[in-house]
Amino acid sequence: MMNNKFMQAALEQARVGMNEGGIPIGSVLVHNGKIIGEGRNRRIQEGSVIKHGEMDALENAGRQPASIYRESILYTTLSPCPMCTGAILLYGIKKVIIGENVNYLGAEKTLLENGVEINVLQNEDCINLMRTFIENNPTLWNEDIGE
Amino acid sequence: MMNNKFMQAALEQARVGMNEGGIPIGSVLVHNGKIIGEGRNRRIQEGSVIKHGEMDALENAGRQPASIYRESILYTTLSPCPMCTGAILLYGIKKVIIGENVNYLGAEKTLLENGVEINVLQNEDCINLMRTFIENNPTLWNEDIGE
Repeated sequence: MMNNKFMQAALEQARVGMNEGGIPIGSVLVHNGKIIGEGRNRRIQEGSVIKHGEMDALENAGRQPASIYRESILYTTLSPCPMCTGAILLYGIKKVIIGENVNYLGAEKTLLENGVEINVLQNEDCINLMRTFIENNPTLWNEDIGE
Repeated sequence: MMNNKFMQAALEQARVGMNEGGIPIGSVLVHNGKIIGEGRNRRIQEGSVIKHGEMDALENAGRQPASIYRESILYTTLSPCPMCTGAILLYGIKKVIIGENVNYLGAEKTLLENGVEINVLQNEDCINLMRTFIENNPTLWNEDIGE
């Protein structure tokens, strides 16, 4: 059961990615209760090595003043990797809601050390979607996390 | 005087960016003595908030196996910000040659803490190019570093 509408929107992005043949990770950037950017991993679809879900959401939000980032919340279906963590720190996003960190634990420690508030939902839909993908595509998954 | 041909190539990317009206930061990814990706900051040209010079070089290198990244050296005209630092860590790049950190000191400490070798050249051409840009475009520069 998913009762958070923004995590639901991130999960929907992940599912769109899966249906495109991509890696099913999705994110949305929310400012004042409104989605200003949504994104999904584009490694397969665009051959991109920098468009993880979080990065794609930031990119699609476009150029924003620092004040907007600082009031925004990032929702993402999976624990953010070091690159996405770095982007969160660069732009001063102060709160990140994470679907799950069972299948992959990113740089959450770095987020916490830098004062970013995180909330890990351990959402079953997020967990199951990613688990199935990794089981079926271990090589592709390793590529996405630099392993 | 620039006697490092790869830093020269990164600087050339920065100059191309400047001539496009962009933020003059350039990077190249080098594997076995050969440039496999070159890039420059694309904030102005593409409205991109994720394509810093280093990210654009990684993107243009395309999908690479982990082994290639680990044998590669990243050359960049300016000290890498937290986002680019995160990307370097994600992909396990072990060595970064930095043109200068006089105008901006990025997350070099994070690189060092994670075992990445860095070499800061304090190259006068890199310093002067960036100094002039920042003096003439302080607001744009602040946007690029999330301030």
